[in-house]
Amino acid sequence: MHKTYILRISCPDRVGLVHEITSFFKQYGHNIIEIDQYVDLHQSRFFMRIAFTVESILQPAKTPPGSSMIGEGAPVLAGGGDPLASLRVFMNELNSGTEWDLHAADRPIRTAIFVTKESHCLLDILSRSIDGELPVEIPVIISNHEDLRYIADRFEIPFEYIPVHADTKSAAEIKQLEILKQHNIDLAVLAKYMQILSPSFIDAYRNRLINIHHSFLPAFPGSRPYHSAYYRGVKIIGATSHFVTEELDAGPIIEQDVIRIKHSDSIEDLKRKGKEVEKNVLSRALWYYANRRVMTYGNKTIIF
Amino acid sequence: MHKTYILRISCPDRVGLVHEITSFFKQYGHNIIEIDQYVDLHQSRFFMRIAFTVESILQPAKTPPGSSMIGEGAPVLAGGGDPLASLRVFMNELNSGTEWDLHAADRPIRTAIFVTKESHCLLDILSRSIDGELPVEIPVIISNHEDLRYIADRFEIPFEYIPVHADTKSAAEIKQLEILKQHNIDLAVLAKYMQILSPSFIDAYRNRLINIHHSFLPAFPGSRPYHSAYYRGVKIIGATSHFVTEELDAGPIIEQDVIRIKHSDSIEDLKRKGKEVEKNVLSRALWYYANRRVMTYGNKTIIF
Amino acid sequence: MHKTYILRISCPDRVGLVHEITSFFKQYGHNIIEIDQYVDLHQSRFFMRIAFTVESILQPAKTPPGSSMIGEGAPVLAGGGDPLASLRVFMNELNSGTEWDLHAADRPIRTAIFVTKESHCLLDILSRSIDGELPVEIPVIISNHEDLRYIADRFEIPFEYIPVHADTKSAAEIKQLEILKQHNIDLAVLAKYMQILSPSFIDAYRNRLINIHHSFLPAFPGSRPYHSAYYRGVKIIGATSHFVTEELDAGPIIEQDVIRIKHSDSIEDLKRKGKEVEKNVLSRALWYYANRRVMTYGNKTIIF
Amino acid sequence: MHKTYILRISCPDRVGLVHEITSFFKQYGHNIIEIDQYVDLHQSRFFMRIAFTVESILQPAKTPPGSSMIGEGAPVLAGGGDPLASLRVFMNELNSGTEWDLHAADRPIRTAIFVTKESHCLLDILSRSIDGELPVEIPVIISNHEDLRYIADRFEIPFEYIPVHADTKSAAEIKQLEILKQHNIDLAVLAKYMQILSPSFIDAYRNRLINIHHSFLPAFPGSRPYHSAYYRGVKIIGATSHFVTEELDAGPIIEQDVIRIKHSDSIEDLKRKGKEVEKNVLSRALWYYANRRVMTYGNKTIIF
Repeated sequence: MHKTYILRISCPDRVGLVHEITSFFKQYGHNIIEIDQYVDLHQSRFFMRIAFTVESILQPAKTPPGSSMIGEGAPVLAGGGDPLASLRVFMNELNSGTEWDLHAADRPIRTAIFVTKESHCLLDILSRSIDGELPVEIPVIISNHEDLRYIADRFEIPFEYIPVHADTKSAAEIKQLEILKQHNIDLAVLAKYMQILSPSFIDAYRNRLINIHHSFLPAFPGSRPYHSAYYRGVKIIGATSHFVTEELDAGPIIEQDVIRIKHSDSIEDLKRKGKEVEKNVLSRALWYYANRRVMTYGNKTIIF
Repeated sequence: MHKTYILRISCPDRVGLVHEITSFFKQYGHNIIEIDQYVDLHQSRFFMRIAFTVESILQPAKTPPGSSMIGEGAPVLAGGGDPLASLRVFMNELNSGTEWDLHAADRPIRTAIFVTKESHCLLDILSRSIDGELPVEIPVIISNHEDLRYIADRFEIPFEYIPVHADTKSAAEIKQLEILKQHNIDLAVLAKYMQILSPSFIDAYRNRLINIHHSFLPAFPGSRPYHSAYYRGVKIIGATSHFVTEELDAGPIIEQDVIRIKHSDSIEDLKRKGKEVEKNVLSRALWYYANRRVMTYGNKTIIF
Repeated sequence: MHKTYILRISCPDRVGLVHEITSFFKQYGHNIIEIDQYVDLHQSRFFMRIAFTVESILQPAKTPPGSSMIGEGAPVLAGGGDPLASLRVFMNELNSGTEWDLHAADRPIRTAIFVTKESHCLLDILSRSIDGELPVEIPVIISNHEDLRYIADRFEIPFEYIPVHADTKSAAEIKQLEILKQHNIDLAVLAKYMQILSPSFIDAYRNRLINIHHSFLPAFPGSRPYHSAYYRGVKIIGATSHFVTEELDAGPIIEQDVIRIKHSDSIEDLKRKGKEVEKNVLSRALWYYANRRVMTYGNKTIIF
Repeated sequence: MHKTYILRISCPDRVGLVHEITSFFKQYGHNIIEIDQYVDLHQSRFFMRIAFTVESILQPAKTPPGSSMIGEGAPVLAGGGDPLASLRVFMNELNSGTEWDLHAADRPIRTAIFVTKESHCLLDILSRSIDGELPVEIPVIISNHEDLRYIADRFEIPFEYIPVHADTKSAAEIKQLEILKQHNIDLAVLAKYMQILSPSFIDAYRNRLINIHHSFLPAFPGSRPYHSAYYRGVKIIGATSHFVTEELDAGPIIEQDVIRIKHSDSIEDLKRKGKEVEKNVLSRALWYYANRRVMTYGNKTIIF
């Protein structure tokens, strides 16, 4: 039986890395079907993504303590008797400072979606997941308002209503984190969730928390970017999906896109045109993430 | 003999304006060939651009003291015995608070180009002007460096070398302004001119001074925007042409465009890709301006 | 009570038209809030769209026999005692060869959606309609397969399964037309409906039948355009929404858009990237149509 | 002394290729600075581009008889005593059916430009070459009209006027080919050259003859595409640069781009907007070519 895996590596660059890694795959007969690499010359750091197939029956196992992560929860393979055990040993010995992870390509990302009142990003993600385009499982939708419960109902996804007010925010976040844990969530998506999360929440989902911001960052961070764009008189508006960090709208950017506007467009027109860009940009970012094509370093992303 | 004129009007909005204006044209037999209008509902202000033909021989005359300007130097028509005299009277009586101007469509904009060392925007403007696409005359190129003199020579355009240093800046600007006056310049274009102009210079060419900035404003104003874009990790870069105002890179935007970049693009790649966007954006802005399609109000432009 | 209407006019061009039309509105006190016009100089034809408000209570009435249509079913206003009666008289007397229609702006377009197995366009239309962006009512979804019934169920829209085979096609179309009539459908949308309709069906919904084709027409008409694009080695793919005419994929184009592809993209990648373009292009075309912004003449559209 | 070379390989795919090639580079101490590869799964063919540096003084030599070419004239390195001799031996023994070539990265492409009357593409190429963006040498401009001689003069490039008429076409082509040979031309660019070349000319410059076509191919091949686009009523126009083959406008596509148009745009507007796209698309194709980033197989290109 063939099974496809994805290996991602981030390590200090040095001569011969590609050779050593491809040698390992050749020696063990793993068939490489896709390989991407990139060297950041400023930081002298090497990044690689390899999709490969293994001919064998595998036993999924617990996360080994020695492996490190890039942008994602837990490696899905490990343990004794595993045909990938040699690969794990090889990776752990590759380089000092190496970060790597390994995923079964057919394991969907368990994704929680946070929303407030706007439905377009939520509906686009749901639409792309039910037709198989987006390899995600969505076990829960979380919202600080009841408005979008009917959509969750239509798609038969549990809807958790957790109101958030200034004085209940900490308690609300504790409840949100419990729900994420309970559903074994890999990735939380803020699909027009109009609340700012605390540093401890952000830290718990470091590089696993994606937001859509309705401007072409770094232009117009913060609230009401379409109003700002209108009054500034820009000729093009945009949207940005990014990992959430402690600094508002300043995390690593995954995807951006834009749309041209006219002087006659009102703020309402900007919102309408922008919605299409927002949902496309967020869904594309999820596609990259769910296919393990996003690697993060410093405040930048590599999209393989 | 048919001759085409362009009338631009900016005035407080009120019921019946289109009717009254088109009535005038019908009554005097001026044939409207293109008409654009826009009402800013926030400011209750009406904007219109009419291109029309007149059958008669006209005597160009001096600028009448009573007419007002929109974004440009001097109306080209006026004076007694002029078949457009009635139009001038009509416009002056139209509305309190009306600004208007009137241009012969075949009169090219006299344009001075300021450069420093980079040639791509200059060459694109020259290329588009010699094949008739851009209806401009370029009587002079001004630079604070000698580097691009050879281009001016090749296109047989006078090149004025005016070095600018901290202590000579005022004197340099006086000389620049003299040259502009001497050449009867309608429009000054900063085509990668790497100096900041003083408020008095800016004021003298209010709405007649266009800059190209190599970022998608308001993102990355000021110096080294490609470096900033690289370190911020944006996925798209852009360029912005705008009227120069006292606040750096904050004047009314005329045109913007963008280009997608990859994580593997270096700062040099960004510069190279950006150059194409810069020159296109600046040349398009000049095309709009030279065809009297740009109207300015507050900090925004209307592009008809 | 204020109520907004949209008037569309297509007629032979002549001097003074704008003046006459705006005079009428001024005389009757109808407040113009948006006006667009265009003159096709090749065909000497004048097109206008006016959005205006009327202060009065109106009695909706039946379609008058004398009015003509542009791209749509039935004018929504007419009849004695109607404050718009004068407008109708004025329009009928305006010009020989005038086509015009008049709509209450708040009347949603009754839209039937035809699908086969692919859900992305259907879901995008439904998503945009439930959040109020698209002013359409969708009383029925028609399909030649059962695959997408579950989506109709989730959105509580009647789903009509009408299988189509070579020998049952005529009967199927008769049934489809009955359903459209029974639901009083203004517009039929082929949202990835993989059947070719007969000339008699097309004629019954002339300029009220919109298709999405998954190529940048006129490139790659007919079946399997992504395969053709892949083998031709194009660098950009696209999608086209157009009115259906008797000639396959050759009707008036309403909207198009494109997306860049890479040499490494497989046919599956093209399909995935193309789906986003397809749904955006179709939904934008519906938005234009539903806001009565599409006018058709010859084989072209005007998008106001 | 460091010197950068570019190696391109096209060969039947098999397991271990990347490993073997990178092993060679590691063994000989050549430092890989950029590596791109692609496997066409349909054709089971492997493509690679490696940029690498060698520390040594090299003697340029004649083209060895055994090496094969990909899209370009002659390898620039070979011969006994050459530190790249081992690489040549390795490449020649790599695989049956391997095509490869090797270039010094700093050797500019010797490029001849063919024009007729339109200047915009010519001027854009010249502009990009004089500021160092395009690594090309342009020893000659060839034209069937005298119109653009003044541009050649301004840039001090020999201009060869070779009129072409139905009865002189063969003789004209013989003269053109002599000029190309005499100037040791690597690449001929048809920068709006409005003549169709004969199959024997095309064959002599197979994969070294680039054309710009003013449509988004395969839409609107042949003459007057802007007229066709106007009458078809498309909403977007484009341009395509491609290698010239015997079938008109059907050769391998290198680059394409598009621009949005409006219903109000005349054919003249389409031409004006299209010119910008044409020159960008052609100059980008030249950049890819001149940096040895274009590989051709069948009727497609790989752009590394």
